[in-house]
Amino acid sequence: MSIFETLESEVRSYSRGWPVVFDRAQGSWQYAEDGKAYLDFFAGAGALNYGHNNPVLKQALIDYISRDGVTHSLDMYTTAKRDFLQTLDDVLLKPRSMEYKVVFPGPGGANAVEAALKLARKVTGKESVINFTNAFHGMTLGALSVTGNSMKRGGAGIPLVHATPMPYDKYFDGAYPDFLYFDRLLQDSGSGLNEPAAVIVESVQGEGGINAARLEWLQGLSELCKRHGILLILDDVQMGCGRTGPFFSFEDAGIEPDMICLSKSISGYGLPMAVTLIKPELDVWEPGEHNGTFRGINPAFVTAAESLRTYWRDDELEKATRAKGERVGAALSEIADSYPDAGLSAKGRGLARGLEFPNGELAGKVCAAAFERGLLMETSGPDGEVMKLLPPLTTTDAEFTQGLEIITESVRTVLSV
Amino acid sequence: MSIFETLESEVRSYSRGWPVVFDRAQGSWQYAEDGKAYLDFFAGAGALNYGHNNPVLKQALIDYISRDGVTHSLDMYTTAKRDFLQTLDDVLLKPRSMEYKVVFPGPGGANAVEAALKLARKVTGKESVINFTNAFHGMTLGALSVTGNSMKRGGAGIPLVHATPMPYDKYFDGAYPDFLYFDRLLQDSGSGLNEPAAVIVESVQGEGGINAARLEWLQGLSELCKRHGILLILDDVQMGCGRTGPFFSFEDAGIEPDMICLSKSISGYGLPMAVTLIKPELDVWEPGEHNGTFRGINPAFVTAAESLRTYWRDDELEKATRAKGERVGAALSEIADSYPDAGLSAKGRGLARGLEFPNGELAGKVCAAAFERGLLMETSGPDGEVMKLLPPLTTTDAEFTQGLEIITESVRTVLSV
Amino acid sequence: MSIFETLESEVRSYSRGWPVVFDRAQGSWQYAEDGKAYLDFFAGAGALNYGHNNPVLKQALIDYISRDGVTHSLDMYTTAKRDFLQTLDDVLLKPRSMEYKVVFPGPGGANAVEAALKLARKVTGKESVINFTNAFHGMTLGALSVTGNSMKRGGAGIPLVHATPMPYDKYFDGAYPDFLYFDRLLQDSGSGLNEPAAVIVESVQGEGGINAARLEWLQGLSELCKRHGILLILDDVQMGCGRTGPFFSFEDAGIEPDMICLSKSISGYGLPMAVTLIKPELDVWEPGEHNGTFRGINPAFVTAAESLRTYWRDDELEKATRAKGERVGAALSEIADSYPDAGLSAKGRGLARGLEFPNGELAGKVCAAAFERGLLMETSGPDGEVMKLLPPLTTTDAEFTQGLEIITESVRTVLSV
Amino acid sequence: MSIFETLESEVRSYSRGWPVVFDRAQGSWQYAEDGKAYLDFFAGAGALNYGHNNPVLKQALIDYISRDGVTHSLDMYTTAKRDFLQTLDDVLLKPRSMEYKVVFPGPGGANAVEAALKLARKVTGKESVINFTNAFHGMTLGALSVTGNSMKRGGAGIPLVHATPMPYDKYFDGAYPDFLYFDRLLQDSGSGLNEPAAVIVESVQGEGGINAARLEWLQGLSELCKRHGILLILDDVQMGCGRTGPFFSFEDAGIEPDMICLSKSISGYGLPMAVTLIKPELDVWEPGEHNGTFRGINPAFVTAAESLRTYWRDDELEKATRAKGERVGAALSEIADSYPDAGLSAKGRGLARGLEFPNGELAGKVCAAAFERGLLMETSGPDGEVMKLLPPLTTTDAEFTQGLEIITESVRTVLSV
Repeated sequence: MSIFETLESEVRSYSRGWPVVFDRAQGSWQYAEDGKAYLDFFAGAGALNYGHNNPVLKQALIDYISRDGVTHSLDMYTTAKRDFLQTLDDVLLKPRSMEYKVVFPGPGGANAVEAALKLARKVTGKESVINFTNAFHGMTLGALSVTGNSMKRGGAGIPLVHATPMPYDKYFDGAYPDFLYFDRLLQDSGSGLNEPAAVIVESVQGEGGINAARLEWLQGLSELCKRHGILLILDDVQMGCGRTGPFFSFEDAGIEPDMICLSKSISGYGLPMAVTLIKPELDVWEPGEHNGTFRGINPAFVTAAESLRTYWRDDELEKATRAKGERVGAALSEIADSYPDAGLSAKGRGLARGLEFPNGELAGKVCAAAFERGLLMETSGPDGEVMKLLPPLTTTDAEFTQGLEIITESVRTVLSV
Repeated sequence: MSIFETLESEVRSYSRGWPVVFDRAQGSWQYAEDGKAYLDFFAGAGALNYGHNNPVLKQALIDYISRDGVTHSLDMYTTAKRDFLQTLDDVLLKPRSMEYKVVFPGPGGANAVEAALKLARKVTGKESVINFTNAFHGMTLGALSVTGNSMKRGGAGIPLVHATPMPYDKYFDGAYPDFLYFDRLLQDSGSGLNEPAAVIVESVQGEGGINAARLEWLQGLSELCKRHGILLILDDVQMGCGRTGPFFSFEDAGIEPDMICLSKSISGYGLPMAVTLIKPELDVWEPGEHNGTFRGINPAFVTAAESLRTYWRDDELEKATRAKGERVGAALSEIADSYPDAGLSAKGRGLARGLEFPNGELAGKVCAAAFERGLLMETSGPDGEVMKLLPPLTTTDAEFTQGLEIITESVRTVLSV
Repeated sequence: MSIFETLESEVRSYSRGWPVVFDRAQGSWQYAEDGKAYLDFFAGAGALNYGHNNPVLKQALIDYISRDGVTHSLDMYTTAKRDFLQTLDDVLLKPRSMEYKVVFPGPGGANAVEAALKLARKVTGKESVINFTNAFHGMTLGALSVTGNSMKRGGAGIPLVHATPMPYDKYFDGAYPDFLYFDRLLQDSGSGLNEPAAVIVESVQGEGGINAARLEWLQGLSELCKRHGILLILDDVQMGCGRTGPFFSFEDAGIEPDMICLSKSISGYGLPMAVTLIKPELDVWEPGEHNGTFRGINPAFVTAAESLRTYWRDDELEKATRAKGERVGAALSEIADSYPDAGLSAKGRGLARGLEFPNGELAGKVCAAAFERGLLMETSGPDGEVMKLLPPLTTTDAEFTQGLEIITESVRTVLSV
Repeated sequence: MSIFETLESEVRSYSRGWPVVFDRAQGSWQYAEDGKAYLDFFAGAGALNYGHNNPVLKQALIDYISRDGVTHSLDMYTTAKRDFLQTLDDVLLKPRSMEYKVVFPGPGGANAVEAALKLARKVTGKESVINFTNAFHGMTLGALSVTGNSMKRGGAGIPLVHATPMPYDKYFDGAYPDFLYFDRLLQDSGSGLNEPAAVIVESVQGEGGINAARLEWLQGLSELCKRHGILLILDDVQMGCGRTGPFFSFEDAGIEPDMICLSKSISGYGLPMAVTLIKPELDVWEPGEHNGTFRGINPAFVTAAESLRTYWRDDELEKATRAKGERVGAALSEIADSYPDAGLSAKGRGLARGLEFPNGELAGKVCAAAFERGLLMETSGPDGEVMKLLPPLTTTDAEFTQGLEIITESVRTVLSV
């Protein structure tokens, strides 16, 4: 392992909790070079919703590469891009009566967020953005400025000043009416709140600790934005692509964001790709005003289109995800209930699930115990106090049985010490 | 073509100059879906130095995908990553006695720049950065703030305030001594210049108009930075990976930047990948202080390692690039000399070459004429006044003959109107 | 009046409500050039607590000028400054066991605030400041950034970004625990709130609408600041110098701010003067690090010292102010109660009193009606909905009788329409 | 002296060089409490152009106070303000065919600058401002951001980011064409310079080291601003009111700034007062958009109007100042020439004069030696390397003889060690 330690920066982190060298992967499994199999309930932090090296997508990818399809094309027109756009329109947008234009903002989720923020500011002529407590939107300077985590913010090295945090749903455990503070500040011309161009929100906060906003909270937020002429940016980078059941995490809430950020599982295969969907009337950019080298990664277009055709032409995956999510949620609740004095609680929606511990140390120990037993899970939340499950949506029932048993045992081991 | 026009944002730009749909690509050629072949002197804006779908890299890529090598791994340890790190060390760093640590900052060049800026600010405790006139470093907020182009800066929607531009080499055509202004401002405690954490520079400005800094200018800049305790960030995203001859564009200058940003051609195959090399003493990050989803794209590690092994274990490619660059440069000079009253001039180094016209309209018309004749080239410079050549380094002599003939003819056609 | 209209900027405002030309003033009275007397319940927006041209101070001032005492001295030592410092120490600080050092930050309240903010940032190394909804701290860029009024903030022309507003006392009419939101954001490392250097607060908000914070709220704020290591800046520019009864407006709360800003009535005579009191351990400035031309206005030192000796060597003024304040408050409550359906309410503490109307139009009409009857009063609050009373503390009972009658009548006239 | 040391902040500075307690002052003299007389060639840093306690102004002041003229009036109309406005128009503006409107921005020069910057940003919708190397414009946050001195800038505690410094006249000793860099950055859309709302400039830099810009440089700057649509703000706080001969320091250059900042000697008596003159078409403010407590200090209006009537109804003072300035300049040149190896040089214009030493230590020693001999002078320049003379314009020839002798002797004493 020494070349990693001698040559790679100290900033590396996942490798610290999982000190093995992975070699192969298939479906819900990653294999270390010594052959040991790990059940993966992390799934590339949500980038592998259809499993590792999904065979359908793999075949399409190999075919494309083999026939010398264009690999890199910036924002030229290509057949692969056309296929992706057409499929996106046919499979996702039209059936949902969603009218949006597509921006290819760069290769990752932070690019999707940066593009949305830039456009919101250009359209409104305002600088300020409202984000929420414990939000995570990315590490580039614009995205970082709307991210909550203080350690990561501190990394910026300059004051991050154009965002004001508002309380996310349930921040005060229901003690406050929703948006009381936010709405009041907006109405009061003496509040000192800079008028916001946009609100950026996740419908379930993944890095923030698997906090699932209630649908009525999302609806309330959408109404508030409309009432005050604020653009609503829905960051669906982690929770989109079916993570919570429907393709878009906000579908159950019935809202229509002004912009939607997609990345992570959009390519379906773990390849870098991102998309920002914008309402047609917001498409005021000059040609080339936002650009970048990696906006046309055609192998990703190929697997993306294939994943939409394979999984989203009917509601099977959506239904299965909801069912599996219920099962996992119930199992986590059961665990929590088994230790009435331990202060555990189950959280989440769909297949974004969490088990909250009183502190980060306990959650970390449980994840470490699970790793020893062959299960990959990470913590999230401001203090790492939430054990986070983002398994591939294609995880089988048997695999869930196996994984949940490991979790149960790991919790027992840690709590009984 | 209608789905592009109806669904894709107006921000698209390359497709406007090249209104065809590309399907396949090989070496220096891109093929439209109607079968028409285009000689590509653009090469993914420098992301395809080894040509489209380079057969050696393609084989390694297909092998890796076929055997279910891990695709997406964030910053976990993988065998593919180890191979890349080891090869980087063996082929690039050790032979050049370069001591650096490797940061995987995210999928694109802007990420490499953002990480460098963050780290420079963290290490020094200062916020301000010096950039140069006509610099291009990316579109995310941090990278954009050190980019010169006013249209792209305007896209930010907030004031970009932490950078001060200094004149790049030859900005005043040699009329001023190098760094006269910069050095004076730094020495003068009353100058009002905020003390900079870092200088960020390209050794040849691509987007800025194929401006090649003289080696002694780069050396002077490096000395000035050392003298004033300022970190030197060399953005080699477009000019590295052999574009100017040697792997690093600054090798001939003999300088040692504190940080080096690589992306574009680093994966060798046009796949998103980026690296920030940092001096070991600057590696002060906390684990996870900078992170991101697409830092471990193993297919890119595979082609990256293979490209280093294939092209950089000896100096053949470097020598060939220098020779081809001389040839192209001579041809462009000849064209310029053929129209003594037209105000043309040849620019560049290695295979980053340009022909400057008196205005952007002329340069654009020449590129359009070349496109009609089957040659892809773009303009650059603040007003698009430079016809830019970034051909694959693997372009053959015969292909250069063909391309240069098209250029000659295109210039003639445009200028004789 | 034409020279005012032709030559003075449209930014002028008080003259629009009171379109007469004042010539002389004495005690609680201002006299227009046509001889008409106006009872002044505005008192220079709190700069004339001891009345216009207070005879005791006037004599000291004329004596000083007549004997050619130094007028302007920057921060040199002068006999007048020594007398002021000694008197401040003897009359104000020592009797209250207050240990502070004295900064002369410039001529006005905004300077006192700017100096406090600069010092707080220097001492803590943090940039962010917490202010409160409907705060007013001044018009220079630093002071404006912690001011709430959106029209005035908009005047800055650049984003004001280093302050985050928190709800002032009773912002939600007591429905929620004090500091619930603020405290939670500070405790939560994922909240996205930039760690604040300081909190700046008025104990009664004058411009914000005569909002008097409860003593326990001020105590809670002080404790919260101590708990989180945040500096507490008490802006007593308008509410200090006896306006609420005791010399410092926060005395009844028993708190010890880290910095106290004084101006307006500190000179006693309406002459520009400001003081920032700082805890001795915060006195980390380099000589000259903060400076300015008008820090040593000796005529103001003379009247300031005289006012302290005249009014603050015993508690007579304090007691009288409290009593008069009670009387005015009772009268305003009576008016409010007389119109049970009109939605009026009386506000304030000491001789900072207000009568809130449902909207700014009504409050403005009442003030206009009062002006016609010879009484000067202004509105405040975000929409100008509060009729504000800041009479000289030296206003006699007979004058209050007269003024309150005019108010009663003016309200009646306006509401009965 | 103990109360100063125990109670006043360490930020005090002038008192460190002149450790005596001043009591009285008359004309060009200040008297310490022990009776010792000091010839004052500092004149309140330019706030006392008509001498200490000028008898004509003193009489007007005492008359006004005695008759209970309104002292403090915010921006109400008063007879004293009308008289000032009328006199300003009659004596200054009309005879010079200057069309400007008058803003009363607050009590000090920093307020005049803050108001100008705010208005420039409001009018243009741009944020950035160009300042010059070694500029000094004040200590409030907006004014500080356009000030050069790094120690004072550091005091801000936040990054000062909205200004970019350009080289002041003779910054490179005439080796390069004026505005070469500035003009080029403005023309080049890829320069990375944020488009400026305004340029702020002093025609002679006082704090920066008595740097007198050539008239043709000022003219060139004015033309450049016109050409690029940039507002020109002339900060005449220290150099206006006759300091260089004519009332406005830029009169000889024949330029018409868009805004002019006046303070310091505008009241004539050392009382706080400031004025921002703005071109009528820039008067776009809403009533009250900029305000402040100390905008209507009527005693200052009285002395201001009187000073204009006394000194500016003819050109006597202007001529005398030019003549005295020539004399002082010649004397300083003679001193410089007497020590050909010492590297001294004389600088300045009118009665803003300086003698530059190779370093701040020598200049400081000369001022200290002069103080021992009864002469008050300060140093300026980034390292305090310039001995600065700002004597009252009313200083007599005999007093100049006396002062220049002390200077000659002080230099001799210091240099002969």
